[in-house]
Amino acid sequence: MTGAGPIAILAGSGQLPIQLVEHLERTGQECRVLAFRGFAAPELRRRADATADLLDLKTIMATLEGWNPRAVALVGAVRRPGFSALLGAYSLLRNRQEVKEVIARGDDQVLRGAVMLLEERGYRVVGAHELAPGLVAPMSLRGKRAPDADDRQAVAFGLELLSSLSAFDIGQAAVVARRHVLAVEGPEGTDRMLRRVAGFRQSWLGLRRRREGGVLIKAAKRGQDLRVDMPAIGPRTVTEAARAGLSGIAVGAGSTLILEQEKTLRLADAHGLFLIAVDLPWMEPPRD
Amino acid sequence: MTGAGPIAILAGSGQLPIQLVEHLERTGQECRVLAFRGFAAPELRRRADATADLLDLKTIMATLEGWNPRAVALVGAVRRPGFSALLGAYSLLRNRQEVKEVIARGDDQVLRGAVMLLEERGYRVVGAHELAPGLVAPMSLRGKRAPDADDRQAVAFGLELLSSLSAFDIGQAAVVARRHVLAVEGPEGTDRMLRRVAGFRQSWLGLRRRREGGVLIKAAKRGQDLRVDMPAIGPRTVTEAARAGLSGIAVGAGSTLILEQEKTLRLADAHGLFLIAVDLPWMEPPRD
Repeated sequence: MTGAGPIAILAGSGQLPIQLVEHLERTGQECRVLAFRGFAAPELRRRADATADLLDLKTIMATLEGWNPRAVALVGAVRRPGFSALLGAYSLLRNRQEVKEVIARGDDQVLRGAVMLLEERGYRVVGAHELAPGLVAPMSLRGKRAPDADDRQAVAFGLELLSSLSAFDIGQAAVVARRHVLAVEGPEGTDRMLRRVAGFRQSWLGLRRRREGGVLIKAAKRGQDLRVDMPAIGPRTVTEAARAGLSGIAVGAGSTLILEQEKTLRLADAHGLFLIAVDLPWMEPPRD
Repeated sequence: MTGAGPIAILAGSGQLPIQLVEHLERTGQECRVLAFRGFAAPELRRRADATADLLDLKTIMATLEGWNPRAVALVGAVRRPGFSALLGAYSLLRNRQEVKEVIARGDDQVLRGAVMLLEERGYRVVGAHELAPGLVAPMSLRGKRAPDADDRQAVAFGLELLSSLSAFDIGQAAVVARRHVLAVEGPEGTDRMLRRVAGFRQSWLGLRRRREGGVLIKAAKRGQDLRVDMPAIGPRTVTEAARAGLSGIAVGAGSTLILEQEKTLRLADAHGLFLIAVDLPWMEPPRD
């Protein structure tokens, strides 16, 4: 039942839903926002057309039915809910054992499950990158600083690492200095991973933290459904990377969102960090 | 110049050097201890025959020459020194560029470099596991609790993950719940990784931490030189694993040290955690 109605935005936390809605409004595309209670930012909730609990699938589905949207986008972060809460909600609709098995396969699979649920009901699910390609990191992304030889080695090594890890439903990011892995992102997210690196760098030999180099590499996983879980960086990522003493950031071209792109680049320049986009050997090349 | 003298223990921090010395003394094997200043535990420093800075290779080499040891063991943790400190020290002895390249390849390579240095001078370098096989996790390791089906799945998945990671000079441990990776150990070490898991479990949905299952898997890497960097667990590991809500611990049989083995097992029983040793497909099978 792909409709003729507006684009429906199911909005979690962070800047992305706000920027996406702004983009749609600026370009004259009609949209409706369903804000997830406890996740969506206050300014978005004020603008929202509906509000629902993340796990209240009945309300979510009834709202969508009323809107008859021509496309649905799941946008913004929703922190991984507890197993039992998810179980309870999903089992309103599906076989308990089946749901349990989906959940056991990890985050990716849960999100894919949500997309399946929407698609089964005939909705067309799209990603923020399809609605607003301007938010995606282009191959040409570049600030004032360029990566040096050590940085380029770290980027290449980090990409190998993320490629190996992509079978395991774990983070989309790592910190690498030359060929030494300083951190792999888990469910804690990129910002906390960067704070961890800052923390143990500070404590080595009792020295104060200083610029020690190293690169944040962030990239989509092999086979990742970018419609529901697209890697993103923004100004906060740059600030945390600088605090961790890194020399720069490399993201997957065409498959990473840059929130507030201009501000992000300006901040990277101000901190003396490079910011580049690299081709991911395991992804389709970006179409632009 | 493998000598006829005592066994030389180059001692870093933690319980392992203490337990190794106790074992050697109990079994009538003569040994001499060189304690690293700022690393070795106070009770060991009192018993030590010599003390040196970690990077003071002149004193270390002169001391060993005087002892004429029949074997040298590097035992206990020495936190990763800063690049420049290492560089300075190594370059007393070797070509600066060569050393820089070794260091750039990561922790493993630095330790392998130290072993090479000793071996070039004719010393026989042995591991704690060769001097005291009783400290190593046997295949038969087992507490009161046994892993259930979810736990066994997590252990198998965790071993796959560690096997994939073993090419990358990163941690020897991960936390896995069923097929979901909760953390990969970086330079921060196992205890801090477990505290990280405890931390973000506590914050999901604002619920208090509770027993949520998951397994700590700790194992040597493919090709790891067990003489200088052998994975180890002990009572503190069990306590942190319990705090993180895990259901148990699996270690590589024959290639992991268990500090205070009886106390460690007793604690695991008290916390209701399983503690098992598993075969590592990528290691030589233990000889016992």
